[in-house]
Amino acid sequence: MTVDLNSDLGEGFGRWSLGDDARMLEIVSSANIACGFHAGDPVGIRETVRGAVASGVTIGAHVGYRDLAGFGRRNMDVASADLVADVIYQIGALQAITRAEGGEVTYVKPHGALYNTIAHDERQARDVVEAVAAVDARLVLLGLPGSVVLREAEARGLPTATEAFADRAYTPEGALVSRREPGSVLHDAEDIARRMVTLVTEGTVTAIDGSIVAVRADSLCVHGDSPGATDMAARVRAALTEAGIGIESFAPTLGGSGLAPASGSVVSS
Amino acid sequence: MTVDLNSDLGEGFGRWSLGDDARMLEIVSSANIACGFHAGDPVGIRETVRGAVASGVTIGAHVGYRDLAGFGRRNMDVASADLVADVIYQIGALQAITRAEGGEVTYVKPHGALYNTIAHDERQARDVVEAVAAVDARLVLLGLPGSVVLREAEARGLPTATEAFADRAYTPEGALVSRREPGSVLHDAEDIARRMVTLVTEGTVTAIDGSIVAVRADSLCVHGDSPGATDMAARVRAALTEAGIGIESFAPTLGGSGLAPASGSVVSS
Amino acid sequence: MTVDLNSDLGEGFGRWSLGDDARMLEIVSSANIACGFHAGDPVGIRETVRGAVASGVTIGAHVGYRDLAGFGRRNMDVASADLVADVIYQIGALQAITRAEGGEVTYVKPHGALYNTIAHDERQARDVVEAVAAVDARLVLLGLPGSVVLREAEARGLPTATEAFADRAYTPEGALVSRREPGSVLHDAEDIARRMVTLVTEGTVTAIDGSIVAVRADSLCVHGDSPGATDMAARVRAALTEAGIGIESFAPTLGGSGLAPASGSVVSS
Amino acid sequence: MTVDLNSDLGEGFGRWSLGDDARMLEIVSSANIACGFHAGDPVGIRETVRGAVASGVTIGAHVGYRDLAGFGRRNMDVASADLVADVIYQIGALQAITRAEGGEVTYVKPHGALYNTIAHDERQARDVVEAVAAVDARLVLLGLPGSVVLREAEARGLPTATEAFADRAYTPEGALVSRREPGSVLHDAEDIARRMVTLVTEGTVTAIDGSIVAVRADSLCVHGDSPGATDMAARVRAALTEAGIGIESFAPTLGGSGLAPASGSVVSS
Repeated sequence: MTVDLNSDLGEGFGRWSLGDDARMLEIVSSANIACGFHAGDPVGIRETVRGAVASGVTIGAHVGYRDLAGFGRRNMDVASADLVADVIYQIGALQAITRAEGGEVTYVKPHGALYNTIAHDERQARDVVEAVAAVDARLVLLGLPGSVVLREAEARGLPTATEAFADRAYTPEGALVSRREPGSVLHDAEDIARRMVTLVTEGTVTAIDGSIVAVRADSLCVHGDSPGATDMAARVRAALTEAGIGIESFAPTLGGSGLAPASGSVVSS
Repeated sequence: MTVDLNSDLGEGFGRWSLGDDARMLEIVSSANIACGFHAGDPVGIRETVRGAVASGVTIGAHVGYRDLAGFGRRNMDVASADLVADVIYQIGALQAITRAEGGEVTYVKPHGALYNTIAHDERQARDVVEAVAAVDARLVLLGLPGSVVLREAEARGLPTATEAFADRAYTPEGALVSRREPGSVLHDAEDIARRMVTLVTEGTVTAIDGSIVAVRADSLCVHGDSPGATDMAARVRAALTEAGIGIESFAPTLGGSGLAPASGSVVSS
Repeated sequence: MTVDLNSDLGEGFGRWSLGDDARMLEIVSSANIACGFHAGDPVGIRETVRGAVASGVTIGAHVGYRDLAGFGRRNMDVASADLVADVIYQIGALQAITRAEGGEVTYVKPHGALYNTIAHDERQARDVVEAVAAVDARLVLLGLPGSVVLREAEARGLPTATEAFADRAYTPEGALVSRREPGSVLHDAEDIARRMVTLVTEGTVTAIDGSIVAVRADSLCVHGDSPGATDMAARVRAALTEAGIGIESFAPTLGGSGLAPASGSVVSS
Repeated sequence: MTVDLNSDLGEGFGRWSLGDDARMLEIVSSANIACGFHAGDPVGIRETVRGAVASGVTIGAHVGYRDLAGFGRRNMDVASADLVADVIYQIGALQAITRAEGGEVTYVKPHGALYNTIAHDERQARDVVEAVAAVDARLVLLGLPGSVVLREAEARGLPTATEAFADRAYTPEGALVSRREPGSVLHDAEDIARRMVTLVTEGTVTAIDGSIVAVRADSLCVHGDSPGATDMAARVRAALTEAGIGIESFAPTLGGSGLAPASGSVVSS
């Protein structure tokens, strides 16, 4: 029994750093690496890629809107032609840096506002899928279970993978509780670690109302943007390992993921 | 007998356009396409790439300093780690867009201040060579005959190609007359066209002092950033064709250039 | 009888130019000058400001979203604290450049997607009003008649002015026909010129359905981003002048506009 | 007896923060606030300005090259027209934000590579002086004793002030030891604090060779970009206070600095 741990890395820019990439690379099996549009300058991206390759961590392209000042977290109504080209550009830039370090980009995870938008917006979801397919149809698209973008990716024949968020509460329907709701973000590392073990071993989490809901995820997203977050991520990994669960990427090499297109869907209770 | 014609394309950004890429693609055999750092947003780059692929024009990465406001024309003392990563990033971004259009990036031509700096600065020249080699050692480096960067590229085993500038005067030593000197830029289209025919057929140009100087170039650089420049480029092509000279790229496919590393050097009189 | 003519100027960036600012400064009485976020680099802004001061053209701050690649035309959900600060920053930058040229910024006109959004979005409209008031409560806010932002500005006690668009069709209710509708943009310079004379002298325009609708505007917006647009703007000015209408700014100096807060509203038929 | 303490603040950008501005505002009397070109987005600048106003800390414009990726630390050969406009733009943006918070920008301190360049480069030094004078000739220019830019400012009639660097070693001639030399940066907080007390009370520092050199400075520059740096700055302030030296800005209000143009020069031993 295995699961993937993923985290956002390479999110500095020039003089500014964010998070402790070196430590996170000891914890996760997949690194979502910024590609320069919401964060990440080439030299910083390269350093993170080098660390990921050295640590055997799988590399994914963390593509976002062109919005450094807003860290890619602001909704933008980018036209389709622009969005497709922006995503291709970002993946390509990361691919070249990764190849130069002897590695391989094997998946794509949209970032921030783009991630949220394509969970429900069909037009932008199709744009992202078109871009990924245009680069390499073997790239795995990592996203939210039940999201429009994963449905579109599967319709296009792209491999997909789903993720759960370690520090987030779930609704009785298996969706994330909105960050605007009280209790949406969890803070107790032990509780979070236990929840993740249960999610992997039993395919369920305890929803915010106390009910048990089925959630199946190929990967668990953990954060590294503060010392507290990094500690929590380490605790999740330790708990998984103690429970005999292997930490392995869902996409160790291109074409080698073995995921059937429809594999990553949520099974609601 | 053949020669390549190259020009800078894809140099718009968002709302701003520059030059008439569609017309230039009917004139040149090689397109130096901006990669986003001095000019070129992804959607505009993609449109130019699509046109180049449709026209059978060879595609090169026109990499520059990260300086949109200065169009990459301002000297910057970029540290080696930054410069190497910046160049890899730009080439990779263009590669992905080009592959998505069914084409191939086969050469690299540095732009503007970077081009000028690496003609003489060993440190930055080595950085650019290292970046190109890290992406793909089959990429041809296009530059100034006798420049430090071509010498470094050849030492590294990279294929190289040299270029002459159609609208520039030459010194008796075969170098370009500085733009700060009177008479450095030529304006008479017929004269320019004749000079280029002589350069290709006889390997010489008439220098600014009237002497004949040997200049050997694999490619002739023409401009397309104004209607007058485009007309001049068309006149150069017509004159070459009338003289029975074929217009062919020096790097039609990766690995197929057939250029020996030391081919592109200037033979001074 | 007088009216103002306004146009967007200073919209180049670095190597890229847009429109013929020198000619437009002979046509308009008010220049909406880009402030660097959607277009305009400082040296280009300064050149346009210098021309405006020399021509006696009134200067307004054309503030927009931080989106050079999208030219400020893409909706962005910018948080209030960011939007307020972004607008203050832009106005201040233009003020300093204008003062350095012996001029004065006397009004603010939001640009592109921001202009459209604050016509109806209360939150962003209040943010813009707060920013303008924070800089100088004597600055006139130029906007769409009946828009939320002008209502908010008037509630705050800011002077306002309204504008009509010379090349746009109107609904029977006095609103602009959406650009997505056929016939929304007018192209016949003579027709446009006649419409503007009627608007100023009679306070009406012929709506898209042929009915006569009351539209009162302190300023008429004309474009200068193509040779055809500039010719059309010149024709509008000539027709107004021939009809004995003076071309005068609504805000020649700070505090001297004399506009009552509620002056600029549309009078619907 | 008094001296000023200055530090670089407002150097975050969007999601990225740098240093502990809140704590530094309890230590310094003058805040060099980033203006958006090397660091600082408007909302972050505004927050720092608000804190400075609330703390009674004097506000200066920390103007730099347009180089976010390089944090303004890379030399750039910016043309005079560009550099003048860039500096005016930055000061104006900060002025508007500062006025909106009830404060006043009273001085200008160039940043990073620009600071270093104008210490010796006459052309760029004159450009900066021209820009400051164009905005407001009462603004004090803060710089290195003996630098070309201060000489140019004095020739132009601008008020000037000089600074010493708390954590830097000095040559026997009273200049800074280059960062490339061993021992150029000091790390012992107690030693640094003692040196600064001596500098203020006796006008001397112990040079790197052990000799005593005269250095007169209106302000002492301390850093806040790491917890260690902040502690060191606090120690310097405490030592000065314990020695009965008041911490007061050299430019509390515009026009009220009382500095004669030639005041800030180094007195070499």
